[in-house]
Amino acid sequence: MFLSKKAILDGVSLEGDVAVLGPSSVGRGTTLGAYSVIGYPIYGKIKSLSKKDMSSYDEVSEGAKIGSNCFIRSHTVIYERVVIGDGVQTGHAVLIREDTEIGEGTVVGTHAIVDGRVTIGREVSIQSGTYIPPESRIGSRVFLAPFVVITNDKYPASNRLLGVTIEDGAVIGANSILISGITVGEGAVVASGAVVTRDVPPNKVVLGVPAKVVMDREEYERKKGDYEMDGR
Amino acid sequence: MFLSKKAILDGVSLEGDVAVLGPSSVGRGTTLGAYSVIGYPIYGKIKSLSKKDMSSYDEVSEGAKIGSNCFIRSHTVIYERVVIGDGVQTGHAVLIREDTEIGEGTVVGTHAIVDGRVTIGREVSIQSGTYIPPESRIGSRVFLAPFVVITNDKYPASNRLLGVTIEDGAVIGANSILISGITVGEGAVVASGAVVTRDVPPNKVVLGVPAKVVMDREEYERKKGDYEMDGR
Amino acid sequence: MFLSKKAILDGVSLEGDVAVLGPSSVGRGTTLGAYSVIGYPIYGKIKSLSKKDMSSYDEVSEGAKIGSNCFIRSHTVIYERVVIGDGVQTGHAVLIREDTEIGEGTVVGTHAIVDGRVTIGREVSIQSGTYIPPESRIGSRVFLAPFVVITNDKYPASNRLLGVTIEDGAVIGANSILISGITVGEGAVVASGAVVTRDVPPNKVVLGVPAKVVMDREEYERKKGDYEMDGR
Repeated sequence: MFLSKKAILDGVSLEGDVAVLGPSSVGRGTTLGAYSVIGYPIYGKIKSLSKKDMSSYDEVSEGAKIGSNCFIRSHTVIYERVVIGDGVQTGHAVLIREDTEIGEGTVVGTHAIVDGRVTIGREVSIQSGTYIPPESRIGSRVFLAPFVVITNDKYPASNRLLGVTIEDGAVIGANSILISGITVGEGAVVASGAVVTRDVPPNKVVLGVPAKVVMDREEYERKKGDYEMDGR
Repeated sequence: MFLSKKAILDGVSLEGDVAVLGPSSVGRGTTLGAYSVIGYPIYGKIKSLSKKDMSSYDEVSEGAKIGSNCFIRSHTVIYERVVIGDGVQTGHAVLIREDTEIGEGTVVGTHAIVDGRVTIGREVSIQSGTYIPPESRIGSRVFLAPFVVITNDKYPASNRLLGVTIEDGAVIGANSILISGITVGEGAVVASGAVVTRDVPPNKVVLGVPAKVVMDREEYERKKGDYEMDGR
Repeated sequence: MFLSKKAILDGVSLEGDVAVLGPSSVGRGTTLGAYSVIGYPIYGKIKSLSKKDMSSYDEVSEGAKIGSNCFIRSHTVIYERVVIGDGVQTGHAVLIREDTEIGEGTVVGTHAIVDGRVTIGREVSIQSGTYIPPESRIGSRVFLAPFVVITNDKYPASNRLLGVTIEDGAVIGANSILISGITVGEGAVVASGAVVTRDVPPNKVVLGVPAKVVMDREEYERKKGDYEMDGR
């Protein structure tokens, strides 16, 4: 257990062994899971430290800011300069790297990786195992199914990072791949397993390798309605 | 270390720091890995607790039941109301959520996620990184290669979950995707990278995006035999 | 915290709670992350132990060898008989199993799994979530994007393992699948989402399901140059 003297932890529950580093601020009603680390400093700072332990990290960490009534599950690592809104939940063993913003009510699933310099809106659902690299921009009320892989370099390993943008209300299917630089428009849907190599227009549904438009969101919603009815 | 007074842990080995919550029962000869949590309560119970720590969780957890001679590796989280048969092994950092049943001799690989309300038979091999969502039904002697992704909603994010069924003896290839609602028949084979959008008849082999039948299991077994011979 | 009396740990930093087992040797300037385990023994040895805890493991472990100035991040497990060169970094929650060699300056990303009996060269970049099974051979200066899945059995579950070989300077795209037995030639490129079922000749670029040659590395480098220029 390492709790920084600089950290604000009023009304916070600690499940078990936890490290909170630097001037981290965690809101009331938030729970920090066992074996988690909050406010972990970036490597650029750590590498010059003569001793690498929680006390030394604490001196250089700028801390993370986590809202109230959040639930950060066990084995999660959140880097410094992450800002998380109220009511956010993470699954187990999540990684959220530096300079990331996550809006209120968003869920980041088990084993998901948010690899730094990412903006995520409100009430987004990021399911298990999804990978979100630096420079990604995700709107609000987006749904990312399990094991979506987003990329940020069209010609790896180049010296240019070019992020993916996902606009509000889009739905991204399981284990699909979004290629560097594309935009998934507002309300668009990407089918499971698709490889998306071009922009997806708003409210269109794409499918396949490479992904092509197969219907409108309106038709998708009709099919979804029928599917939901069949289940009653 | 937190060991519930309600837990039955006779003849159990603890690798290192472990939490065992509620009336969990773990069989003789079983090992619990370091940094693991057993009997973790569902969120519906946790959210109403005034304090969120292992002691409070212990009061509300219904515990997990783990058989004898199991090996639960480090950083694993097993929720309450999970029932695991004798001789089961998990890899490292596995998540098994509530109301899941796992039969004797099954292996759940490193980083695999069994996301609750799942039934898995005996002697199943679930390789690393595989994702199994709620409502999945997996028979016995099934082989799931690494990073298989199973889904449970045909039109995400709908209000209806519709599980995948995998019958006895089926083989599911690496990084393939099984779409919500399908059944993979007894002894069927799904090739690596396939996206399975329809039922796979028993003893058929499917391949591609979307997956199509390419041969019978019998032919697959002949090819497998030749491949094995070539290796001698 | 468990530090073997047999281990050599001069000039090593320990971030937090760590276990180091057997005659492990860790070089000066190396950091071991919190909640990590180094020198974990193979199951074949553990299963015959009457008690399974760090002290008993310590007696049977042959230790791991980690070079100097490495950075092993939190929640990582490294098995015995792993040999890691100087300046290697791992992300969080990495698994590196037994009899693996990793060359100097290589990076193994968060949640990556190196599943034992693997050889990896120098200055390789293995991104997050990538899966590398036993018998894989990876050259130097290779780039593996996030969530690459490599397989080692052409007809699972057979009794023959047949590894993939990736030669020097190859680039493997995100969430692609490399099928058992293939060789990716020197300087070849595999596009994101490809399923590679045959050998890829040196300096060729392949794409699709199944993957086919679409251009030379030379053309790829021209496109990469243009892409980099566009970003300025």
